[in-house]
Amino acid sequence: MPTYTPPLRDMQFVIHEVLNATDELKALPKHADIDADTINAVLEEGGKFASEVTFPLNITGDTEGCKLDAKTHEVKTPTGFKDAYAKYVEGGWPALSCDPEYGGQGLPFVLNQCFYEMLNSANQAWTMYPGLSHGAYEALHAHGTDEQKKTYLPKLVSGEWTGTMCLTEPHCGTDLGLLRTKAEPQADGTYKLTGNKIFISAGEHDMTANIVHLVLARLPDAPQGSKGISLFVVPKYNVKADGSLGERNGIYCGGLEHKMGIHGNATAQLVLEGAVGSLVGEPNKGLAAMFVMMNAARLGVGNQSLGLTEVAYQNALAYAKDRLQMRALSGPKAKDKPADPIIVHPDVRKMLLTAKAYAEGGRAMAIYCTLLLDKELYHPDEKVRKESAEMVALLTPIVKAFLTDNGHISTNACMQVFGGHGFIKEWGMEQFVRDNRINMIYEGTNTIQSLDLLGRKILGNQGATLKKFGKLVAQLVEEEGVNEQMAEFINPVAYLGDQMTKFTTEIGFKAFQNPDEVGGAAVDYLRVAGHLVFGYFWARMAQVALREIAAGNTDPFYKAKLQTARFYFARLFPETATLMRTARSGVKVLLDTEEALA
Amino acid sequence: MPTYTPPLRDMQFVIHEVLNATDELKALPKHADIDADTINAVLEEGGKFASEVTFPLNITGDTEGCKLDAKTHEVKTPTGFKDAYAKYVEGGWPALSCDPEYGGQGLPFVLNQCFYEMLNSANQAWTMYPGLSHGAYEALHAHGTDEQKKTYLPKLVSGEWTGTMCLTEPHCGTDLGLLRTKAEPQADGTYKLTGNKIFISAGEHDMTANIVHLVLARLPDAPQGSKGISLFVVPKYNVKADGSLGERNGIYCGGLEHKMGIHGNATAQLVLEGAVGSLVGEPNKGLAAMFVMMNAARLGVGNQSLGLTEVAYQNALAYAKDRLQMRALSGPKAKDKPADPIIVHPDVRKMLLTAKAYAEGGRAMAIYCTLLLDKELYHPDEKVRKESAEMVALLTPIVKAFLTDNGHISTNACMQVFGGHGFIKEWGMEQFVRDNRINMIYEGTNTIQSLDLLGRKILGNQGATLKKFGKLVAQLVEEEGVNEQMAEFINPVAYLGDQMTKFTTEIGFKAFQNPDEVGGAAVDYLRVAGHLVFGYFWARMAQVALREIAAGNTDPFYKAKLQTARFYFARLFPETATLMRTARSGVKVLLDTEEALA
Repeated sequence: MPTYTPPLRDMQFVIHEVLNATDELKALPKHADIDADTINAVLEEGGKFASEVTFPLNITGDTEGCKLDAKTHEVKTPTGFKDAYAKYVEGGWPALSCDPEYGGQGLPFVLNQCFYEMLNSANQAWTMYPGLSHGAYEALHAHGTDEQKKTYLPKLVSGEWTGTMCLTEPHCGTDLGLLRTKAEPQADGTYKLTGNKIFISAGEHDMTANIVHLVLARLPDAPQGSKGISLFVVPKYNVKADGSLGERNGIYCGGLEHKMGIHGNATAQLVLEGAVGSLVGEPNKGLAAMFVMMNAARLGVGNQSLGLTEVAYQNALAYAKDRLQMRALSGPKAKDKPADPIIVHPDVRKMLLTAKAYAEGGRAMAIYCTLLLDKELYHPDEKVRKESAEMVALLTPIVKAFLTDNGHISTNACMQVFGGHGFIKEWGMEQFVRDNRINMIYEGTNTIQSLDLLGRKILGNQGATLKKFGKLVAQLVEEEGVNEQMAEFINPVAYLGDQMTKFTTEIGFKAFQNPDEVGGAAVDYLRVAGHLVFGYFWARMAQVALREIAAGNTDPFYKAKLQTARFYFARLFPETATLMRTARSGVKVLLDTEEALA
Repeated sequence: MPTYTPPLRDMQFVIHEVLNATDELKALPKHADIDADTINAVLEEGGKFASEVTFPLNITGDTEGCKLDAKTHEVKTPTGFKDAYAKYVEGGWPALSCDPEYGGQGLPFVLNQCFYEMLNSANQAWTMYPGLSHGAYEALHAHGTDEQKKTYLPKLVSGEWTGTMCLTEPHCGTDLGLLRTKAEPQADGTYKLTGNKIFISAGEHDMTANIVHLVLARLPDAPQGSKGISLFVVPKYNVKADGSLGERNGIYCGGLEHKMGIHGNATAQLVLEGAVGSLVGEPNKGLAAMFVMMNAARLGVGNQSLGLTEVAYQNALAYAKDRLQMRALSGPKAKDKPADPIIVHPDVRKMLLTAKAYAEGGRAMAIYCTLLLDKELYHPDEKVRKESAEMVALLTPIVKAFLTDNGHISTNACMQVFGGHGFIKEWGMEQFVRDNRINMIYEGTNTIQSLDLLGRKILGNQGATLKKFGKLVAQLVEEEGVNEQMAEFINPVAYLGDQMTKFTTEIGFKAFQNPDEVGGAAVDYLRVAGHLVFGYFWARMAQVALREIAAGNTDPFYKAKLQTARFYFARLFPETATLMRTARSGVKVLLDTEEALA
């Protein structure tokens, strides 16, 4: 059976030592009172909840799955899921970073980020039930009427109800412009919705008295395509004026999907038969409102893979130290034992370090990104708010796609460390691989993320935001340019930054001639961008470690950090050599394939 | 539901047009009568069996799995598996490439290779039941006594009985030197075996009246480690002198594993309680005898992933043509439809072409390798037999590891083409990913394959066999050096060949100082070697295609082949740029990690 220890030390390292987040947050009037002790205390309690309450339900949840009662349309979640959710509500966890006006604790997003990383390590399927509520909360908070806010936000914040995002239909996932669900305006100002939604995560369950569905649909007079989509809030039970629950609404679970992973989460087919809803935001502007949810969800999905990478690493490390098999090529290391622990083998170390480097790099990037979210919303200076928003927009597709692809690489590597036992369910490793696999797909496939990055976020503003990230790299080079010890970490990043600048200009010209060139280069480009960002954070982490060691700090944590940074630059970062080459090879070789793909 | 069409045209292309296999086979007295029509007819019939009999059982087999009756220790295979096996026996398929002396049809291994590729595309879990028999057949054929051969071979050849390989124990997989199963000699010349085996594929089932287990165990006076292991044949039912079945032997299924994939195959825990067995080959020389099975099994595992790559590709291609979603970046292509089929998107094409290029390259390499097997055993010239054997030995770890890693990449890419639907069981794509995942692990993990390649097969003979493969490349360069059209295919292979020669010398020197250097470079080295071999075969396939086109052949097959070759060299082969760099980065960065991996 797998184990999980919350990586509190590493989170604190990123928050306090690398990003100096407490000072950054104190500069925001909203968080003027935050201090390191509060942050650490919340993380510690959050880690306890994840490791003690939801982690023990991970394998059983996968084995049991969810059960739909075809008569009542009610879904039974796996044993223990409901109780764990009750404890989650009791602990006040849903409110962590929510608006105090609706009962939230108003703590920084950085805390919610770290808490959710731990929840995802512990049990991704369970975590999606409360996780989806955040998107519904954000959409209503940003675009809801006062009445909608009053009706729904306090219940979402307390966790009494959960939320969902109802976008996909059988014939449309990526291309929401094709969606067919209809919303008919009623005399009383409400709408009646009719249609079929699929792939609705946490779409039905037995954890809460009500479920708040955010549903994309078309008004009768709506223009075709994506400009004719509106957003509605459709509760499972209608809500009376006094806030109590009324009649069952016409939105039912018609089936549950049988999936590769996240078995503990109900992936629902939802049938809307004249379900009563109210409009959120403006008519035909639903996609914009939906993107508030979607951007939060994309960061959330990257965080799911970060969590799985960490827990897979921890278990593979423990196994590699324990499992005796063969001798080191350079001669026996554990002479008193019948064989050496497999951690003596260089390739086993490579697999472990791959997961470790991706987990720690991902953690630094994700925390940095949520710190920017706090600044985007609450910094007193409008320019900082705007720049933070732009940087979050740039980093979001990278967090989503790079972290989930890295999760795929890492969970598979960690499973491989277990040999044949990795393939066996009881060890838990293959579940991490299966659960992670959806993260590369949902909330916009990783291909879609790459098009968003290269097409919209980079070429869309002539590389302006990318240049701002380049300035951070340049600043680090300036700070440490004379420090010989830093050269091995800074030089590759600086070199890659130059290459990317050139390539971005090139691809801009090529795309001007043929827009398909973007599609031929984007996926490789995103991975290069991911390494640029990771390289930058690994250099910054190495900088802190070198500084501490120079100051006489003997905590082995810093030596470990340097070793992992060296591994990252020697073994993972060089992937960019191939990616730059393939991204540059052009789209002709892909499109001139009529006969090959006949 | 997925579909499958046997790739007969592509097999015929490799056999007849690229490898000129009929003439090569005719040069062997054993196959003097073979002709292209026979080969094509057998492939066609084999394809029918795979697509019509076992393919329809693939998803249901995965869903149902195998059931163990704890009282009788009998295993029930999924619905239809037993009937399909009866048809397999009825069709004479088990005997295809077996020795006519024992009832075999004596056809070339090349045919069995192609037949098994199709069976693996259709249903890997089912195919493992007859597949494991081949290893037992080979071991007994090579090392059995006359009596053992007489008792077991005709039944294995007819398919009346199946065979297994019982190697792994709970505490030892890779390191068989640790195994503990005991064999006590009896007065009558037999042995009584006691111990526990795990992960025994096809270890118990309801398809045949008897199962022939080949079991590794230790004699009482055996030396420690791998030099004290002997091989025994232990039938499920003892066999009487007249060949009829006697008493139930003391070898029972104690449990079935719950696994990530290949659910239709029974992965058995086998308990030996004084099971009666007879010694195969010499005492304490069991590992050598076992390697006869193991080498066949390693080629077989590569072939499993080749099959999955092909079937995943076919289904992703069909889906990509059918699924309408978004418009091409360069403007609508299917203007009469609400959206374009997703095959217009460059990255979708990249994913499809990745699987196609790996399938077709893998097919060429695997067929080449089995043609060498035919020569190794039956060529009249001893020198050719010896050289063929050496080349098979060199290529075996590459077929096993490169083809299974490529299967991982390809099945995941093809699943990704399906978006959210790829994660749903009914589409069948996620099963290809899960089933393929074990291929990277069993019969020696891919790390073990890489150590076998670099340590034993290459450095072990100072690169002599690798140089022989290099001569094939040089020969192609000589043939086509003046052909400008071939430059794009030949130059990268020739360049990589030079790089590998240099690097092999370097790593030889480094390993002399520190043997761990081999372990730090081997996995990357194997992938480079894989691309050298694939590059060579893609160049040869392009050569044939160019020649046909120049001769006025308008079959679009040849244009398709050129397009796929161009894709391979532009998008997959350049991975070697990174791999050469990481393989060269040395082992220090992996081993100097005490604190990081504490």
